[in-house]
Amino acid sequence: MLLVDKTVKDFVAQVASNEPAPGGGSVAALGASLGAALTSMVGELTIGKKKYEALTDEQKAIVDGNLAATKPLIEKLNDLIDADTNAFNDFMAAMKMPKETDEEKAARKEAMQAGIKKAIEVPLDATKTALEVLKLQKGLALYGNQNAITDAGVGALLACAGVEGAAFNVLINLGDVDDAAYVSEKRAECAKLVEEAKALRDETVKIVYAALV
Amino acid sequence: MLLVDKTVKDFVAQVASNEPAPGGGSVAALGASLGAALTSMVGELTIGKKKYEALTDEQKAIVDGNLAATKPLIEKLNDLIDADTNAFNDFMAAMKMPKETDEEKAARKEAMQAGIKKAIEVPLDATKTALEVLKLQKGLALYGNQNAITDAGVGALLACAGVEGAAFNVLINLGDVDDAAYVSEKRAECAKLVEEAKALRDETVKIVYAALV
Repeated sequence: MLLVDKTVKDFVAQVASNEPAPGGGSVAALGASLGAALTSMVGELTIGKKKYEALTDEQKAIVDGNLAATKPLIEKLNDLIDADTNAFNDFMAAMKMPKETDEEKAARKEAMQAGIKKAIEVPLDATKTALEVLKLQKGLALYGNQNAITDAGVGALLACAGVEGAAFNVLINLGDVDDAAYVSEKRAECAKLVEEAKALRDETVKIVYAALV
Repeated sequence: MLLVDKTVKDFVAQVASNEPAPGGGSVAALGASLGAALTSMVGELTIGKKKYEALTDEQKAIVDGNLAATKPLIEKLNDLIDADTNAFNDFMAAMKMPKETDEEKAARKEAMQAGIKKAIEVPLDATKTALEVLKLQKGLALYGNQNAITDAGVGALLACAGVEGAAFNVLINLGDVDDAAYVSEKRAECAKLVEEAKALRDETVKIVYAALV
C-alpha cells in the first residue's frame, strides 16, 4: 500500500512509531505537497471572482499560470512521499553483497556508493520541487483572493519547511559518500536552494502580515 | 467523515480544490502533528539503543519525558485539524439570524461577535499546542539517536510552520472583531508565541546542521 493511500491519522501514527520509515524525507515532501495544495486553493478561490476581473491582464496571467503550475507539483511531491521511503533499496541491496575477497569488497563498495548517490537524488528532487512551489506563492498572495491570503502564507511556510527538510536528508546521506567533489557540490547546491527558499518565504510572509495588520 | 480519516492523497486534493475548507488552519495543525510524530519517532528510535544507555540519568529523563509528551500532542493536533474546519459554525449560524428590527440587529451582532471569538480560540489553541511540540524537539536532537537527527530537524521546521500558520488564522479573524482590547491582546499573544517558536526552531536546526557538517 502506498503511503499516500493511508489515512492521515494512520500516516501520522506510522511516522510516530519506532519504524525508521516513513521519516523526515517523506514528511518533508508531504509538507511541500500541502503547501502546493494551499497555493492551488488560493488560485481556485480567485478565478472568476469580482476582484479577479479587476486585475490587469498581466496579473491575471500570474494567477492563472501559478495555479496551473501547482497541479503537476502536487502530483510529483505526492510521488516523492513514497519514493523517499524506497530510495535506499539499491544501497541496502549493495550492503548485502558478499565481502570475502578483495574483489568482492571493491564491487560491494562501488555498488554502495552508486546506491547512496541514487538515494540522494530523491530528497534533492524534493528540495528543488518544493522550491518551485515557493516561487508560485508570492504571486497568489499579491493578486489572489485576499480572504485566502493566510492560506498562501501557510503554504509558503510549509513549502519552505519542505525545502529545508528535504535538504537535511540530502546532507545526512552525503556523510556516506566518499567522492569529496560530489559531496562539496551537493552541499553547495542545498545551501543555495535553502537560501532561495527562505528569501521567498520571508517575502510572501511579509505580504501576508502587511495585509493582516 | 473526519478529515483525518481521509487518505493523504484525498486530503491534499481537497485542500487544493475550490472549497474554502479545509484550508490553512487545518493544514497548519496537520503540519504540527507531523512535526510531533517525527519527534515521537526520534524518541522511539533512541530508547533501548546503546547510545541511550550511555546517557546520564538526566538526559535519559529528557528523552523519556519528551517522547511521552508527544503522544497527547499528536492526538490534540489531529483533533484540531477537524476542529478548525468546524470552528465557524456558531459565527455562520449567527450571520443567518434575523436583522429587521434594531433589537434583532443588535442580537445578531452580539452573537456574531461571540461566534468569531469562539472561532479564534481554535487556531490559538493550535498555535500554543504546536509550540509545545517545538519545546520537545531540541532535547531529542541533542540526546536522541543521531541517525535520526534530521528527523528532529524536519519536525522542528514543520512544528514552527504550524505555530506561525495557525497564528495567521487567528490574526485574519481578528479583523472581524470589534473589541479593540481583545484584538490587541490576541495580536500581542500571537507575536510572542511566534517569536518563541522561531527561536526554538533556530536552536534545533542549528544543532542539526552542526551534526551534519
